[in-house]
Order: sequence, then C-alpha cells, then structure tokens
Amino acid sequence: MKISVLGAYQTKFGELWDQSLESLIYKAALGAIKKAEIELKDIEIIFLANKLAGSLNDQNHLSALIAELLGINVPVVRVEAACASGGLAVNQACLALSSGQYQTALVIGAEKMTDLPSDQVASGLMTAASQQEQQVGLSFVGLYALMAKKYLSEFQVLRKKLALPAVKNHFHASLNENAHFPFKISLDQVLHSPVIAQPLRLLECSPLSDGAAALVLSAKKYGQKRKNGVKIRASQLCCQSLSLSQRSSLTQIDSAKIAAQKAYVQAGLGPKDLSCLEVHDCFTIAEIIALEDLGLYSQGQAHSALVNGENKLGGKRPVNLSGGLKACGHPVGATGVKQIVELACQLKNQAGKRQMPGAKVGLAHNIGGTGGTAVIHILTN
Amino acid sequence: MKISVLGAYQTKFGELWDQSLESLIYKAALGAIKKAEIELKDIEIIFLANKLAGSLNDQNHLSALIAELLGINVPVVRVEAACASGGLAVNQACLALSSGQYQTALVIGAEKMTDLPSDQVASGLMTAASQQEQQVGLSFVGLYALMAKKYLSEFQVLRKKLALPAVKNHFHASLNENAHFPFKISLDQVLHSPVIAQPLRLLECSPLSDGAAALVLSAKKYGQKRKNGVKIRASQLCCQSLSLSQRSSLTQIDSAKIAAQKAYVQAGLGPKDLSCLEVHDCFTIAEIIALEDLGLYSQGQAHSALVNGENKLGGKRPVNLSGGLKACGHPVGATGVKQIVELACQLKNQAGKRQMPGAKVGLAHNIGGTGGTAVIHILTN
Repeated sequence: MKISVLGAYQTKFGELWDQSLESLIYKAALGAIKKAEIELKDIEIIFLANKLAGSLNDQNHLSALIAELLGINVPVVRVEAACASGGLAVNQACLALSSGQYQTALVIGAEKMTDLPSDQVASGLMTAASQQEQQVGLSFVGLYALMAKKYLSEFQVLRKKLALPAVKNHFHASLNENAHFPFKISLDQVLHSPVIAQPLRLLECSPLSDGAAALVLSAKKYGQKRKNGVKIRASQLCCQSLSLSQRSSLTQIDSAKIAAQKAYVQAGLGPKDLSCLEVHDCFTIAEIIALEDLGLYSQGQAHSALVNGENKLGGKRPVNLSGGLKACGHPVGATGVKQIVELACQLKNQAGKRQMPGAKVGLAHNIGGTGGTAVIHILTN
Repeated sequence: MKISVLGAYQTKFGELWDQSLESLIYKAALGAIKKAEIELKDIEIIFLANKLAGSLNDQNHLSALIAELLGINVPVVRVEAACASGGLAVNQACLALSSGQYQTALVIGAEKMTDLPSDQVASGLMTAASQQEQQVGLSFVGLYALMAKKYLSEFQVLRKKLALPAVKNHFHASLNENAHFPFKISLDQVLHSPVIAQPLRLLECSPLSDGAAALVLSAKKYGQKRKNGVKIRASQLCCQSLSLSQRSSLTQIDSAKIAAQKAYVQAGLGPKDLSCLEVHDCFTIAEIIALEDLGLYSQGQAHSALVNGENKLGGKRPVNLSGGLKACGHPVGATGVKQIVELACQLKNQAGKRQMPGAKVGLAHNIGGTGGTAVIHILTN
C-alpha cells in the first residue's frame, strides 16, 4: 500500500462553546485541503467519522450535510465504529483509493460533545457497549476499570505505575497548542485525584472534547515537487465480541493484536522499526495494554518502559506525542484521524517543540468500545 | 467492475414483534451465506447498513455486535446514510473488493423500527433532514409533499396519476411472500385514504418495517460451476445538499442523476438496456421523479408509463417487482440491500410468481433523505 498523506490538519481540541459540529467539519476540511496545496474541486470522495451527532446534534445524515457545507456533489461516506470511527474512516479511504476508482480522498473526523446535557452525552457514549453492560449500569470507565483490576493482579504491577501514561501524555500535551489540556500534571496529582471507578482516578480518564481533524490522501504518484512525502504503508481493521464477558482475556485485546499483526505484514515492518506511536489511551490502562498488544513489550511489562522514560519525548520510542486521548483530548470521531495527523506531522519533521528527532516510522492504534473494533495504521516518510 | 453476487437473502419484512435487531441480522447473514454455498469462515470482510439502532435500540457499535453474533474476528464496517445506508454498504463492499485486499464480502442491511414508541421513531428518522427542516416541524412526508405539489403544478399532471405507483407496487407485493403488505389495493382506496401531508395520502407512504437483507459478494473468478452468475457492473454514490431549500429544483434529484450517469458509463449500458428496476418509492412522488432522474422518461412524463402499464409485471420495463418500499416495506438500513437481492433474484430467474421473463439488466436506485445521498447499482446476468 502506497497512499500519500498530502495534507493533515487538526483544529484546537477542547470545550469549544463557540463552535458547532458544522463549523468544526468545515474548518478541518478546508484546513487539510489548504495544507495539501490542492483545491476543493480536486477531492473525488469524502469519508466522515462521527459517532454522536445522531443522538446529540439531531443530525445523522452527515454525508449530505458535508455536501451542503462544501457546496459540492461528490460521494460522501459516513462510517461509525464508536471511538474507532476515525481510524475506520482512514481505513475505508485507503480501500477506496486502492480500488483505482478514486485518486484523491478527504477524510474528516469530527465530534461536538460539550455544551450539551451530560446525561445525554453519557447515554450516547454507552451505545458503544453491549446491552448487558448497559443494563447492569456499567460505564466505559467501569469497563476499563475491570480490565485494570485484572491487569494489576494478574501481573502483580504496583498501582502507581498504572498512572504513568497520564503524566507522560500531559507532558507531551504541554508542547501542543491544539491540545485540550496543554499543561503538565504530576504523578502525585493523578494518584490523589478522585476515584471514578476503582482503581481508575479522574486524571487517568480522557475528557469529553469538541474538535475535528482532516486528511487529504492520494493514490497519485507525485514526483520531487512533493517533498517530505508521508505514506500510509498499512491499514488494517479487525473486530471482536462487543461484550467483555465474551472475551478469553481482559488483559489483551484480540482485535488489536490481529490488526497489528496484519499491518506489520502489509507494511513489511515490525515493532522494532517503529519510531513513534499514537495509541488509544482513553484510560491509562488502555495505553499499557495497547503497547503489549502491539508486540512492543511482553504481557505485564509495558509499565517498565514508562518507568525508564523510553516512551517519553527524548526516549527511544515516544508514545502519544500529541498528548494522546488523555491530554490532547478525545472528540470521539476525530481521534483516529488526529492520530494520523500527528504521525504525519512527526514524520514530516513539523511537530515543533514536541518533534521526535529523525522519526521515520509511525503507528496509529485506534480502539472502539473496549476493543470490539480496532484499527491500525503504519506510516513512513 | 465485475463483482459476482454469490448469495442473496431477505427476511420477511413487516411488524416482526418476535424479532430483535440481532436476530434479523443473524438470520439474514446466515441466509445469504447458505445461498452462496460457502461457509462463514470464507467471509473476509462485512459491511453493515443501519440507521436507527443508536437512537432506538441503544446500540451503535454494530461492527462488534456482529463479530460477537457470528463469533468471528474479521473487519466489520458500519456505514450510515439515512435511507440510502443499504445502497452505501453495497457500494463500499464493491470498493473493498475492487481494492484487491479482500475477495469475499458479506453485506447486511437491517433495521428494527416497530414495537417502539412512535415519537422516538419519528424523531430518529428526522435526524436525516436538515436542522432548519426539523425546526420548522417538517416531516419526510411533508418534504416529499412539497416536491409532489411542485411536480403536479409544474407539469400539469392530474392528481390521481400520482397515486399509480402505490397501486402497481401493491400488486407486485401481492406476489411476494416476504412483503410487509402482500395484498392489492385499488386506485380508489389510495385516493380515499387519509391525507398525511397535502397532497400525499396514507396509501402513498411507505411504512415503518422491521427486516433485514444480506448479500455475499465476490471478486473471485468462478467457472462453469457457478451458473446463473449475477454481476454488479456499476456502483456509484453521489451526495448533494441536505436541505430542500438549497436545491435548484424540487422536481429532480441531482445526486441521483449524477450517480446514474456515472453508473451508465461504468457499466457501458444505458436506460434503454434496463430490463427491470428497483427504485426508492418512499412516497409515490419519489418513484415518478426517480424514473425521470434515471433518464427513462423526460421530466413530467413518467406518469404516462404508469398509465399504460409498462412499469408493471408483464410490461416492457417493470419497476419495483419486490413491491418497492411502499408495499414490500421499508426497514431503512435493509432497503438498499433488499433492492439488490430482488434484482439478483430476477436476473437468476428465481422470482417465482413475480418473475420478469428474460430479465437481463437491473438497476437499483436508493435515496437518503430527500436526495442528499443517492446510490445507483447496475447488475447483469
């Protein structure tokens, strides 16, 4: 697979009370097109990732909304896979470009989650869990708390190590002006923040955010004119059972493992080749499991890399340089697209203060629900 | 494009109070796999069309739900485009198969709409219209009534002719045991049914239905063993403005015209080559506009074909042999998939009492909202 990332754009993530879903979509779309140095008329097909507009914004027919916003008559495809919607949109754009039917695609991920009644947002989010999980009153933090408890006991990991991804990701976000929380937090602050679902605490949870991200992808062959070309080398999707209760393990996510293995084969690259990663840290435990599922550390060992700082900017393999879902923010549909935007930025050496020197290979890991859907992308420069 | 339809299956459409969304999906999936004479393990990717499960069944993460129902770990993609979701799922499956990355795809369209509070269903459906249209209290029958009024006045068509598609489609449904309404109605009954939104009457409106349909599609080359092979020759998607107020015309749908033109070019076929069609008759006016948008009749003329019976079984070019949305039923996500199931059935000469003798080329026309999204497929045997 050799698909070029021509343009990548992210809006500010946060509580954007002066922005609507429409304005976020519009801004991200035009931003990516401008960065790609093409024109709107060059876009042949559009993919949109959004989870909640049907429940929160009374708007499900987003394909036509985008056609109206941009004033164009082209194919627009809305995909949805809970928090993996963004990764899925990129994945489907890659398939469309590989089909030969289209040459240039725009991918938009957008979500408007704040400035709305919080019970409505909570029940909208829970539609990504199984009926059984909803009926017993579980929330997503509750579901990930079950995974965290099992992980801590199974691998005899000290509680405080679980909190490390949040501290690291806030540090990265302090270098990212588009982040929802562009400031540092201490381990002590995390460990003394309120318990949300035992053992997970407030500062271990990603926030509700508004925001959008967009990419222009192309199957065309560009010459020397397009310097610093970033390519998508692999795009893989896998699903597994919706309910945690139907899984053989709570401490690994099969869909992510399968998609990652296929992506490594497709790219002809392995875990050791990765320079930097954006992984789905909706809760701290999720980042730890992700790094193990991706084959970077054996089970129960990812925390050691957090202790020695190898996943922090300056370390050998930084993870979540954007700040991750935890600190850059988590506007659901935008997240998976933003991960690719961040990697493209790193691989083009345009990430400013949070640039990993010499980044060559990036991996994005995007999860829906507790792993019912997983999407993996590998990019190179 | 040469994608084979290996298997096609439709559940009964109707008020299926003993069926859940899950059971409908399961039944359709296994039905299509059985008809394809393959096994579940041969399915490499699944596409699902559904509009309302997030609002009506508290379930949005349908990709993982399907992985759980079928007990498999494969890519599952949920797409949504209002009432064009089914056509969109088939379209995206065609792209995935054309990419060379997958050889065999399962497409499922499913919707559970009855046995639920009707205000909830109504507001769920209206998320496919623009904010402005929702705010002024318009319903979809109201929106199509505006189109009908304009059509009747612009082309000086007699009111009673508008009702003809309903009579014809109920006749076809009387020959289809899977139809929601498998019985005939008279023109007089239509014209004396209650007005829902002037000029449209109750018996000119498609119903809320439960139901599912599924297809097994393949990019593999099959030899003589697969007789009566039906091929998808064209698959095109186009979008246009969500709001009626943003359109240059109320009596034609640009997205459908553009998608149809592209589909004719892709298939190397024209309107005159079509043996039979399944078109999106959510309201009687929609079928009339569809036939004109598809280039079969000039504007203001489609009613003449309804008068002389050429679109009825036995006529030269039957339309909606399944009974259409009006009489076969309209489980939103299933509709676009069912259209292809019906065409595959006709082109394989397996449609029993409603078989069009010698059907060779079929076209499916699936619309979302008032035409914000349009999907066109052309099939041959």
